[in-house]
Amino acid sequence: MRPSLRPADSLRTIQLTRGYTKHAEGSVLVEFGDTKVICTASVEENVPGFLKGKGQGWVTAEYGMLPRSTGSRMRREAAAGKQSGRTQEIQRLIGRSLRAVVDLKKLGERQILIDCDVIQADGGTRTASITGAFVALHDAISGLLQQGKLAESPIRDFVAAVSVGVYQGQPVLDLDYLEDSGCETDMNVVMTGAGRFVEVQGTAEGEPFSEDEMQQMMALAKQGIAELVARQKQALGL
Amino acid sequence: MRPSLRPADSLRTIQLTRGYTKHAEGSVLVEFGDTKVICTASVEENVPGFLKGKGQGWVTAEYGMLPRSTGSRMRREAAAGKQSGRTQEIQRLIGRSLRAVVDLKKLGERQILIDCDVIQADGGTRTASITGAFVALHDAISGLLQQGKLAESPIRDFVAAVSVGVYQGQPVLDLDYLEDSGCETDMNVVMTGAGRFVEVQGTAEGEPFSEDEMQQMMALAKQGIAELVARQKQALGL
Amino acid sequence: MRPSLRPADSLRTIQLTRGYTKHAEGSVLVEFGDTKVICTASVEENVPGFLKGKGQGWVTAEYGMLPRSTGSRMRREAAAGKQSGRTQEIQRLIGRSLRAVVDLKKLGERQILIDCDVIQADGGTRTASITGAFVALHDAISGLLQQGKLAESPIRDFVAAVSVGVYQGQPVLDLDYLEDSGCETDMNVVMTGAGRFVEVQGTAEGEPFSEDEMQQMMALAKQGIAELVARQKQALGL
Amino acid sequence: MRPSLRPADSLRTIQLTRGYTKHAEGSVLVEFGDTKVICTASVEENVPGFLKGKGQGWVTAEYGMLPRSTGSRMRREAAAGKQSGRTQEIQRLIGRSLRAVVDLKKLGERQILIDCDVIQADGGTRTASITGAFVALHDAISGLLQQGKLAESPIRDFVAAVSVGVYQGQPVLDLDYLEDSGCETDMNVVMTGAGRFVEVQGTAEGEPFSEDEMQQMMALAKQGIAELVARQKQALGL
Amino acid sequence: MRPSLRPADSLRTIQLTRGYTKHAEGSVLVEFGDTKVICTASVEENVPGFLKGKGQGWVTAEYGMLPRSTGSRMRREAAAGKQSGRTQEIQRLIGRSLRAVVDLKKLGERQILIDCDVIQADGGTRTASITGAFVALHDAISGLLQQGKLAESPIRDFVAAVSVGVYQGQPVLDLDYLEDSGCETDMNVVMTGAGRFVEVQGTAEGEPFSEDEMQQMMALAKQGIAELVARQKQALGL
Amino acid sequence: MRPSLRPADSLRTIQLTRGYTKHAEGSVLVEFGDTKVICTASVEENVPGFLKGKGQGWVTAEYGMLPRSTGSRMRREAAAGKQSGRTQEIQRLIGRSLRAVVDLKKLGERQILIDCDVIQADGGTRTASITGAFVALHDAISGLLQQGKLAESPIRDFVAAVSVGVYQGQPVLDLDYLEDSGCETDMNVVMTGAGRFVEVQGTAEGEPFSEDEMQQMMALAKQGIAELVARQKQALGL
Repeated sequence: MRPSLRPADSLRTIQLTRGYTKHAEGSVLVEFGDTKVICTASVEENVPGFLKGKGQGWVTAEYGMLPRSTGSRMRREAAAGKQSGRTQEIQRLIGRSLRAVVDLKKLGERQILIDCDVIQADGGTRTASITGAFVALHDAISGLLQQGKLAESPIRDFVAAVSVGVYQGQPVLDLDYLEDSGCETDMNVVMTGAGRFVEVQGTAEGEPFSEDEMQQMMALAKQGIAELVARQKQALGL
Repeated sequence: MRPSLRPADSLRTIQLTRGYTKHAEGSVLVEFGDTKVICTASVEENVPGFLKGKGQGWVTAEYGMLPRSTGSRMRREAAAGKQSGRTQEIQRLIGRSLRAVVDLKKLGERQILIDCDVIQADGGTRTASITGAFVALHDAISGLLQQGKLAESPIRDFVAAVSVGVYQGQPVLDLDYLEDSGCETDMNVVMTGAGRFVEVQGTAEGEPFSEDEMQQMMALAKQGIAELVARQKQALGL
Repeated sequence: MRPSLRPADSLRTIQLTRGYTKHAEGSVLVEFGDTKVICTASVEENVPGFLKGKGQGWVTAEYGMLPRSTGSRMRREAAAGKQSGRTQEIQRLIGRSLRAVVDLKKLGERQILIDCDVIQADGGTRTASITGAFVALHDAISGLLQQGKLAESPIRDFVAAVSVGVYQGQPVLDLDYLEDSGCETDMNVVMTGAGRFVEVQGTAEGEPFSEDEMQQMMALAKQGIAELVARQKQALGL
Repeated sequence: MRPSLRPADSLRTIQLTRGYTKHAEGSVLVEFGDTKVICTASVEENVPGFLKGKGQGWVTAEYGMLPRSTGSRMRREAAAGKQSGRTQEIQRLIGRSLRAVVDLKKLGERQILIDCDVIQADGGTRTASITGAFVALHDAISGLLQQGKLAESPIRDFVAAVSVGVYQGQPVLDLDYLEDSGCETDMNVVMTGAGRFVEVQGTAEGEPFSEDEMQQMMALAKQGIAELVARQKQALGL
Repeated sequence: MRPSLRPADSLRTIQLTRGYTKHAEGSVLVEFGDTKVICTASVEENVPGFLKGKGQGWVTAEYGMLPRSTGSRMRREAAAGKQSGRTQEIQRLIGRSLRAVVDLKKLGERQILIDCDVIQADGGTRTASITGAFVALHDAISGLLQQGKLAESPIRDFVAAVSVGVYQGQPVLDLDYLEDSGCETDMNVVMTGAGRFVEVQGTAEGEPFSEDEMQQMMALAKQGIAELVARQKQALGL
Repeated sequence: MRPSLRPADSLRTIQLTRGYTKHAEGSVLVEFGDTKVICTASVEENVPGFLKGKGQGWVTAEYGMLPRSTGSRMRREAAAGKQSGRTQEIQRLIGRSLRAVVDLKKLGERQILIDCDVIQADGGTRTASITGAFVALHDAISGLLQQGKLAESPIRDFVAAVSVGVYQGQPVLDLDYLEDSGCETDMNVVMTGAGRFVEVQGTAEGEPFSEDEMQQMMALAKQGIAELVARQKQALGL
């Protein structure tokens, strides 16, 4: 029995609220149960130095947690003077995941900066971030299409993410904080709408996992992501 | 005529939403019109080094803005590796303002850390932060009283803040971003429920201001803060 | 009775020594009693990035304290790797105060960098800095006029600063360190030669202050600044 | 045909040279073809703050590259003043991988710090690091056993790592730099001697990958790691 | 002919002004011609971590330059967020030089922190710093003797420093900025009152120097330092 | 008797292994006994900002130590976020020493970056670094000559370095770690093939040294450097 009492293959309540704040070209509040992340997409008409004059665009991401998004207060990274290794790992993952479904040449010489800021954390902040960030990105690109700055959408597919794990010997989907802290294995999976893998990151927290457990986790992830993509489509009215 | 069309002595719509996030001992979403700030109060059973063994507590604050809380995206301070001078000035102001109404000896050897994170900015983020942070602090202290950790409340009075300015020669109350960018003088005033001053910070952005303008701004601030304290009481059910 | 034995409305001995060091375009040692600050003005024929091509100049300031300018040694900020919030607050204040009396368009596309370095501290370092920095700035601009780089002075008025406070219930002028540490309220006031306000920054260190105390402090500040401007004129031979 | 002309399932030449430098408790030069990494294990009779008094030990890792270990010179991280996100990701991975096969309780209240420094890079530096670091860790622990500081080895299994990928549609084992830069998918797999997974990190650099490709890559990784563990045993004379 | 018109073996005008600022236990303004440095000695009743409980004291130094102590303004190190390599080299040299003449055991478990801050630079700031710092250190130690905190002086000898160089083929003593920028070789020599060497640091800026030039520079340095030690004694009334 | 049992005027076993790693334009493993340093030379077709358009090149150096190159593990500078004062002193010394024998005008508008990374330390890492770096630099320049990018070698002379010291009253050559920690005086000497001085840096660790000791140390250094230059020529096949 999971602490959340959910069946092994059940997602938490998923909410995607578009237009959450007013300034950004895309702004989404994503909720995976009690995990809440503000995802914004900002369009800038320039590219990083390493892409100048290459005829392509860029999508990148930054991630942060409000100090008291967590059970006990974390030190503010701006006050500490640096981003932790965990923060950098997550923001690199979000950026790669989104770039996997964007045709950067079609985006033109501009960049879209994604900001994912966790206002309440209860496990799965990186998977919620990717899932919400895709919707914010989609809105920012719709804006570019409407303004005639893009003739054709550079978005090639949907992308969403979910965590799976082995909790007390049982493969389960979409772990909350209690489950995540107690599980033997934690795996984050990022997949496209077409069911192909963008990222697979599995870590044995305790006991190393078997090939069989790996297979079962992959199957749960596949099903969960299909549901998340359906929620993204619904939120976008597609 | 103000860009906001408000009368000169009129506040924006004020909202104070308690219990906005679930982990913090106090958590308030404060809205001054389109300015929205999450204020949390975290209780820690320790004090900073310089107060160890002095038999008193501490209240301090940190402030941040989400990168896209503003019209154009600001650099994330955690990525830049330091907090700007403006950020430090604001968080020092919030801390001083709250300490002015707390009896630190009665608080005992513990500290309350306030985090004010702007999720949408439209002028007056520091005054909204102080006004919201007081309510979060009040909730955190109520919790300590309920748990029996405090026998008596260390809160001596209410405290709230508002901006006043001279816009096109006219003293006005509670400036939004458009008014703030265009005004000659900007003054932030922090006052107690009893109508005494905690902080007065007036800056001539353009033309230096006269004693007469100063008097009129002070009168507007006094009235505005009385209204804000009334809203705090209402939100707290007092 | 003030610790300094001065009457409530009396400044400390004020000295303004021009040409204190030989390299800077303006170089002034300012003394407010035992508080001693070296203020230099450096002219650079360029402007910060955000002003490039805007047809105007800039005046900015940096502030520092020698580690043993104080009673007990402070950590050197260069060794600590960052400037404290207090330092940043003060240097921003000095810069704003000077810009308030300079016509930046008339200055042309150049900047004047003010450095205020405290060699001995006894209260009021920020007000002494502003008062001395104006004289250094005036000398730097006189140099530009003499060299024919400026046809007309961009200086629109004098500017000086003084602290006022409430010490044991009594409003007093120009607090030294002992008075400053013991006072209930501390207010720094920056005014022009014409008697208009540039900055007012009042802080209740202990008990919040009343409107009446505010009025009395403002009156003392006004008188003190008139005296300081007279000393600036005398030092400049005007 | 792979650029390296190796068959799809073939590792590069693997060398594990123990006792490579003289000061460390374990010191190994690991070579995966032209990739060369010095792995040292340092024993310290203390634990990080968060483990004080918990009756267990710790294993952690740091990773670096000599500036000219690569084709064009990289900026020295010590001069840049910070470690890149990539560096932090890799050193966290090395630490987790080793901890997965160490019984931290049996290690006692001491820590083993692993340093992996790349002196020549040709792809796969993180997998070579993990594979070599295990041997250095083993030597350090043998020393503790010989000195009687440990009664029983805390090592529960072997651990090694290898990269797999999809190169021009073909799943291949142990990619060198040329193959890595040109591949569609790159996956790093960390497994134990018993054939269980510790980490799986797969990233689609170009086209997202299918479940079938995933299966084939996993099979190659399994075979490669079995060979690497055999080489570790041989090097250790076990 | 030297730019300064001084004979080859002539020092600049040397001034040592004790009691220059009021807070420090020792405070000296040292002038070598137009080079002016404030040297303070601060006594602290503790030692750095690596000396805790070792029954000895410590003497260390920090060095800085006011931004406009030089012909063109230098970036403030506190604003840059770090001390340059040159600054660190100089402050390490000052510390070593002073420790060479102090019996650290006799000093007891306390440290003396020297701060050398250049207010006007014209070549030779490090040699002026050492020469002035010794006098400030002497005053701080006299204070400890007078207060009965030390029974016996830990000072074993005098120490002073001077630069020598080869300017247009001619060995010269105590180079000013113009001479220093134009010389082929620059050597800083630190010697005791007894005429023994503490530090010799010679650098060929242009052409490497011969043994013969080396001998001549050493002779000049020896003579110059004897004069500087005489000036220190005179300043201290010894 | 020296701890190393070597005669007073005897170098350790010297090895210079060219082509040690494959990517750099020059790559040398230098060994002075148990001290082992990888020296690489990287050619870049640009110059630092301060030399842009001046028609000359630049040679500069960086230095680092692997954390466990030493008896007890040192903190990794990249993790600490800054290079120590010692590191900066050494890398500045290496750069100056090499520039002393290179005609920077003949090098053209390009720079050669030297990296010296200590993989095993046993005293004399800076002198080994200079001696090895010269050989790496020579190889990089030979490459430029072979590629026709340079018509004439900008190398004007050989340069090598050695330490000398006074150990138990006896001047000795090329100190290892044990000798270095126990000596009264430590002097690093950098000389050209023609026997002229580039740098002399002598420090009294304990008792200040006499002129006579200075002379003897200089004579030992001269002899040692002649031997090192012979080894450089042999390694380069000259």
